[in-house]
Amino acid sequence: MRIITANEFLTNFQARTILLDEFFEQEEKVKEIVRQVYLERDEALLKYTRLFDCPVCELDELVVSEEEIDLAYRWCEENEPDFLKAIRKAYENIKEFHEKQIEKSWFYNTSNGSTLGQIITPLKRVGIYVPGGRASYPSTVLMCVIPAKVAGVEEIVMVSPPDRQGRLNKYILTAARICGVEKIFKVGGAQAIAALAFGTKILPKVDKIVGPGNIYVALAKKLLFGVVDIDSVAGPSEIAIIADESANPRFIAFDLLAQAEHDPLARTFLITNSNQLASKVSEEIQKLLFEEPNEVASKSLEKYGLIILVEELNQAINVVESISPEHVELICKNWEELWANIKSAGAIFIGEFSPEAIGDYIAGPNHVLPTQGTARFFSVLGVHDFIRRTSLIKYSKTDFLENYKHAVNLARAEGLHFHAKSLEVRNENVSKRTGQTF
Amino acid sequence: MRIITANEFLTNFQARTILLDEFFEQEEKVKEIVRQVYLERDEALLKYTRLFDCPVCELDELVVSEEEIDLAYRWCEENEPDFLKAIRKAYENIKEFHEKQIEKSWFYNTSNGSTLGQIITPLKRVGIYVPGGRASYPSTVLMCVIPAKVAGVEEIVMVSPPDRQGRLNKYILTAARICGVEKIFKVGGAQAIAALAFGTKILPKVDKIVGPGNIYVALAKKLLFGVVDIDSVAGPSEIAIIADESANPRFIAFDLLAQAEHDPLARTFLITNSNQLASKVSEEIQKLLFEEPNEVASKSLEKYGLIILVEELNQAINVVESISPEHVELICKNWEELWANIKSAGAIFIGEFSPEAIGDYIAGPNHVLPTQGTARFFSVLGVHDFIRRTSLIKYSKTDFLENYKHAVNLARAEGLHFHAKSLEVRNENVSKRTGQTF
Repeated sequence: MRIITANEFLTNFQARTILLDEFFEQEEKVKEIVRQVYLERDEALLKYTRLFDCPVCELDELVVSEEEIDLAYRWCEENEPDFLKAIRKAYENIKEFHEKQIEKSWFYNTSNGSTLGQIITPLKRVGIYVPGGRASYPSTVLMCVIPAKVAGVEEIVMVSPPDRQGRLNKYILTAARICGVEKIFKVGGAQAIAALAFGTKILPKVDKIVGPGNIYVALAKKLLFGVVDIDSVAGPSEIAIIADESANPRFIAFDLLAQAEHDPLARTFLITNSNQLASKVSEEIQKLLFEEPNEVASKSLEKYGLIILVEELNQAINVVESISPEHVELICKNWEELWANIKSAGAIFIGEFSPEAIGDYIAGPNHVLPTQGTARFFSVLGVHDFIRRTSLIKYSKTDFLENYKHAVNLARAEGLHFHAKSLEVRNENVSKRTGQTF
Repeated sequence: MRIITANEFLTNFQARTILLDEFFEQEEKVKEIVRQVYLERDEALLKYTRLFDCPVCELDELVVSEEEIDLAYRWCEENEPDFLKAIRKAYENIKEFHEKQIEKSWFYNTSNGSTLGQIITPLKRVGIYVPGGRASYPSTVLMCVIPAKVAGVEEIVMVSPPDRQGRLNKYILTAARICGVEKIFKVGGAQAIAALAFGTKILPKVDKIVGPGNIYVALAKKLLFGVVDIDSVAGPSEIAIIADESANPRFIAFDLLAQAEHDPLARTFLITNSNQLASKVSEEIQKLLFEEPNEVASKSLEKYGLIILVEELNQAINVVESISPEHVELICKNWEELWANIKSAGAIFIGEFSPEAIGDYIAGPNHVLPTQGTARFFSVLGVHDFIRRTSLIKYSKTDFLENYKHAVNLARAEGLHFHAKSLEVRNENVSKRTGQTF
């Protein structure tokens, strides 16, 4: 890993944002797929699934049957009891955490007897996108489905691309079964997103689509934002580890490697005030990659791995803010002075027993986090993503008569005549009935 | 207004979603503007402002000076004291309501001494788009700025297109002054959105852009979603009024006209079980439009106005759900049985003294609401739009040793070797130090 100073870093680093031109180019392909699904629905869904994923699939095979889920689940029971135990424990912890996010409707009365408030309603039907291939993670099924269920969403529709033989990953199906997903379809890519947005004969239209995916999935979500709600535009993942000389370099090396093994585009940062730690971590990584070569991790670390030296550890805050990373680990003695100053991060992990992987799987908080520097404005996935907020206004006659003239004056300033009249007519009517002028 | 039955309506009505082709066509123009601003920043900003808004503007004139704001404010003090009084009262009520939306960070400890939680942080810098021309509303300044301020946003950057002489609306400037907006720029359209997303020399880059706008603004927001956060994709407005024979037809007529005067594309629905009310409202509207002709309202009502007859008033719920309107008014005796069943609406107004206009201006809840049927998944603007949620994980040694194996098993099932190792190495280290095996 390259070692540079904080000043060099802050002068030269540009937070990675989605490159416009790259985005615009890929968009044309995605647009065509979306258009086809809009026009031909199931027909297009089958066409693209055959083209990109499974050449032998028939339309009715895109619907995952109860038997397929049972088969996967029983296979896990027989062959992977530890996986099942682990996923049950994760389910429990994730559910416990997310139940603390539940928001309730609230109302209050004014002194003049009006009622004002905010009504919380769960979304009705939600789509969960689960990637296929190398990035097919059963843990992501839990992280997307559990907050939706806790919010009270009635129906979860899961989509995931099948392999060449038309199968879905056994672990994914088992995780879906444990979370109580209502419907599963073997479709992926932009065609899956378009089908969820518009609905087809076999696949019901949803209100919101969440879950990570490749660039085609991300572009289709962005393109259809507004027709349907989406969680965010996901990109490659980041970690920034703030550590001092007290930290175990081997722990840090593995944490950086864990981030790097996800994606050749993943970004990894170690920020430290200890030259010694910097060298040790760098050596440790070389040693580990020599013992166990990993092409993805090597590429990622070579291109996007950085060790940043600071004079004082509190300078790390500026560095972290400029990165706005998905994950921050604090493995240092003065973490108490630091953590509250970190504003732009998806999740903060404190202490040597809080490696990112413990949060990825088992601790309880969500692992679907803002990536690519978007922690500047996006948030971790949660129950708040699966609710709607509706205002309630039940205005009393007293409040109306006391306040309507202000509203009339604002309506007049905005040139909205009938807005003003809709208020005045109520006052006139009261005056008429009571014989009074207000 | 056309009168039809609920059955006819439910069979034939298609919730209006953004038409893909219309969207795709306009997009090319918007993309070009966004690209130019990305490449040339201030230069492009000036070029487009001269082209679309004010041919005589110079770059430094795009920054609104303190003097301009003072001048507008003093003009209002002298000439429009009632407007000032009204906007102050609105400010107070809106602030009071939104303060109830404040969310606090929370943390809890597990029985094994871990700390888990959710940190709430305000966004740092937010952009507010205020339309120019006919739809230039000072009330919208309040509705966008107040929740951001209540959330704790440090800096608000407001943009609004100037007129041909390079001026901004006096009421808008006065409202901005009362809300404490930090910076105001005379730019509008897609170029303003791009400038807010990328930043230029004169205009700082923001984290989120909110506020209504025309189709170019909506498209630019959508295009740049991910580079910056946005509130939602806004479109024409809707109202659905549920009323029985007890309702005053004149009130309803004015409420429908108030919605219709916004936009020829605005949609207005009266849903009633009373044939008599249906005819009376229809007649009343004709009479009022004869007395005070209004082209926008007439067009809107003719094309998008509907009176829907139901047998029983509770059938109105299905109709409302299928529309998912921005506003719902309940002017009927059995409102208590009905309101809680309405799930898909931006705001619900109950009783004859709660016309939409009272909520637009003075009651306190926000008037920036999901439009075009998007209340199915989008929410009213609020403090929640101006915060980020970050997870906190401080895992204890005891919890780690009790749970890490589950995480290892999940990492192995996902083929993430270094994730598993980052957990195992910590256990090995503990074993080594204590001489115990775990």
